[in-house]
Amino acid sequence: MKKLIGDPQHVIRDALVGLDKSTPQVRVDHDNRVVLRAEPKPDGRVALVSGGGSGHEPLHGGFVGLGMLDAACAGEVFTSPTPDQMVAATTAVDRGAGVLHIVKNYTGDVMNFEMAAELAGSVRVETVVTDDDVAVQDSSFTAGRRGVGVTVLLEKIVGAAAEEGRDLDAVAELARRVADSGRSMGVALTSCTVPAVGKPTFDLPDDQMEVGIGIHGEPGRRRVPVAPASEIAEMIVEPILADLDMTTSPVIAMLNGMGATPLIELHLMYGEVASLLEKAGVTVARSLVGNYITSLDMAGCSLTLLRADDEMLRLWDAPVNTAGLRWGA
Amino acid sequence: MKKLIGDPQHVIRDALVGLDKSTPQVRVDHDNRVVLRAEPKPDGRVALVSGGGSGHEPLHGGFVGLGMLDAACAGEVFTSPTPDQMVAATTAVDRGAGVLHIVKNYTGDVMNFEMAAELAGSVRVETVVTDDDVAVQDSSFTAGRRGVGVTVLLEKIVGAAAEEGRDLDAVAELARRVADSGRSMGVALTSCTVPAVGKPTFDLPDDQMEVGIGIHGEPGRRRVPVAPASEIAEMIVEPILADLDMTTSPVIAMLNGMGATPLIELHLMYGEVASLLEKAGVTVARSLVGNYITSLDMAGCSLTLLRADDEMLRLWDAPVNTAGLRWGA
Repeated sequence: MKKLIGDPQHVIRDALVGLDKSTPQVRVDHDNRVVLRAEPKPDGRVALVSGGGSGHEPLHGGFVGLGMLDAACAGEVFTSPTPDQMVAATTAVDRGAGVLHIVKNYTGDVMNFEMAAELAGSVRVETVVTDDDVAVQDSSFTAGRRGVGVTVLLEKIVGAAAEEGRDLDAVAELARRVADSGRSMGVALTSCTVPAVGKPTFDLPDDQMEVGIGIHGEPGRRRVPVAPASEIAEMIVEPILADLDMTTSPVIAMLNGMGATPLIELHLMYGEVASLLEKAGVTVARSLVGNYITSLDMAGCSLTLLRADDEMLRLWDAPVNTAGLRWGA
Repeated sequence: MKKLIGDPQHVIRDALVGLDKSTPQVRVDHDNRVVLRAEPKPDGRVALVSGGGSGHEPLHGGFVGLGMLDAACAGEVFTSPTPDQMVAATTAVDRGAGVLHIVKNYTGDVMNFEMAAELAGSVRVETVVTDDDVAVQDSSFTAGRRGVGVTVLLEKIVGAAAEEGRDLDAVAELARRVADSGRSMGVALTSCTVPAVGKPTFDLPDDQMEVGIGIHGEPGRRRVPVAPASEIAEMIVEPILADLDMTTSPVIAMLNGMGATPLIELHLMYGEVASLLEKAGVTVARSLVGNYITSLDMAGCSLTLLRADDEMLRLWDAPVNTAGLRWGA
């Protein structure tokens, strides 16, 4: 295992120190492993809390700041944060208008966020669960579909709505609408290596790739020989379009790197994906190419398409100031 | 070789298609392989042109847009663009106030940009050459020091100055001042693989790393056993501080990923670097952590420190709207 780390048991602790020092938009509660906005939101605004296992950076800590999250709970690598962390985050950011929990659909996360909502006492909590991965039903970490890339787009769009002063019901309704309107599919060229384990999560021969990979290295749909980018694009575009009609409104398209894939390859893949979408009659209104929801040092990519109405596009364009996404601020 | 590509001979052509389609800030002249601003600068403003071998994305095409470059020439992987490309870029972006060429110190780039400046006819051209890598004097691609990370910071700061309407002499003077004030040092955990070659550029045993690596995989200072992040931080911080006193003014610090290193490791490394800088009496005024000047799929990182006066910090904070760096716009 070759990694820029110290003690493999303390990777999250040490990475949070660096995030804190390099990111003026946040401050880190190191005891609770909660990333908070450096400048809290004004009273009366709905707050957004997310979190999950670490190893998917910039998700979620890199999305804390103006226009996105108010707090993110960092679990151990690929391990849900505890309900205690979530309660600490929720009570710290509540401004009297309630808190939205944004939860990726993995059994541990869903259970712990449910418990945290109950334990949060007088804070009103609504929850949205993302489950956009079309690759598989049920999986090693999940009952039902896995929550992946749409979580990034949801945090941006719903974060902007909360910033505008909408109430908790309206924010939660929008969040569920975004979650329902997005679909994702990924592919891995290599495994990832969890630092505390020290060896690759799965074996993938030199000439094979895994289609439908999960963000923790969970198995996908099938293994196939490594193919040219144009064919890989088909393997991730077609299952998405087969699952949800993406021609009824413009889409936001995210071509996401899994952590070890260089930008030149992501650009190239985006070109292939865009060409297929054009042929299928899908209109891309906004696009995002880069590392947004990763799997440690996995090589590969995922595509997320979100059917976006005018309101979602307007909220997408609103100012955001986080380590991972920033514009207009 | 596992990469998200098609024909290894056409990676640059194909990646430019994707950059073009995903980046509203630019349009690509595919015949000349020049990335241009979608909205050209007004008449009377100095324009900035850079370029070099591809494989370092987002540098340089991802830094074209408001507040940074006006055009970037894309060479083949790790190969200088031709003088023809540079002339096409220079004449396309000149608004009557002259053009600054920003050149990383590699023999081919320097020679070709010199030729292009001569061939650009009536366009007045000034040139700045970056050579901030403290690792080695002379190298497989270079006479003198190699130009690396300071190029990113220079394009941002000088781009903001050009946007304000300064004349070519003032822009060039600032550019040289920035180039003189920055130093960098990198480390590789793995080699990179050039697509058209199909195998790693160099061999690096599983338990070794290369200290002082170049961005094309050129040899550094020495090979050492893989070390904890805190020791790696010493290996890159100390040579920089030994080369230039960084305590005389605040610095801009960039902890850059080489392409295949996940953000969680970059955050962790930044924490170690920041702690050493603090001990050495260096004040970090601004920081940047992520992939900005990469080496295809190399794992590793580099540190760039720039001694920044008040003017440079003000220009650093000015709005920028590119694929690779964006804020305030």
